[in-house]
Amino acid sequence: MPNSPDRSQAITETVTRYIATVTDGSADDLAAFYADDATLEDPVGGEVHIGTNAIRSFYSSVTGVQRDCELVTLRVSGNEAAFHFRLTITAGDNKMRIEPIETMVFDSDGKVTAMKAYWSPADVTQL
Amino acid sequence: MPNSPDRSQAITETVTRYIATVTDGSADDLAAFYADDATLEDPVGGEVHIGTNAIRSFYSSVTGVQRDCELVTLRVSGNEAAFHFRLTITAGDNKMRIEPIETMVFDSDGKVTAMKAYWSPADVTQL
Repeated sequence: MPNSPDRSQAITETVTRYIATVTDGSADDLAAFYADDATLEDPVGGEVHIGTNAIRSFYSSVTGVQRDCELVTLRVSGNEAAFHFRLTITAGDNKMRIEPIETMVFDSDGKVTAMKAYWSPADVTQL
Repeated sequence: MPNSPDRSQAITETVTRYIATVTDGSADDLAAFYADDATLEDPVGGEVHIGTNAIRSFYSSVTGVQRDCELVTLRVSGNEAAFHFRLTITAGDNKMRIEPIETMVFDSDGKVTAMKAYWSPADVTQL
């Protein structure tokens, strides 16, 4: 069975918490979603960050600005999720919007083992 | 560089042709998008179809009904794409809509080497 309702609901809740944490959480809070040996590729085609230390460091570079994040579309399939979300970043007078599609693979503890973010500079809108 | 404009444009054009081919193409037409040793997982968590023969066979099972497919959101990142699309299927008096998010990895010839489709029965709407 690709989908069990319980697992699907647990993944939905985790992604919802992740989106809320991108808005107002710390790098530690965001790294806590990941398994110890997880990989993070953001954007896809760029550097792959391996392990929670590298992942925390990645998030440290993006949590210094004001963020607002909302989920647009979520699909849960097996142990994985794909979702489109809208991230608005404010840094001083500069405001911009990015709408990536991300995929996440979850282990049996509900931790993310692999995250990939699909976006490019062409998807960034200055507001 | 995660994204070169030429590669990004070529992937955009391929995904656009793929969506049009899901609407009115044959299983052969759809299998032609894939590299010889490609993998197709649709839905994610289900069986992984390996190689163009298995992929053609997979598409044969879905090309017997009237389909209408449109692209909703596309992100191209490195050699990969993620896209949300809307598929309306009509079989006799039964009409339904599925809106998966798919990811595709492309090789240097522009062929798909891996496709994953994220959706579950919860995402199917009877019209």
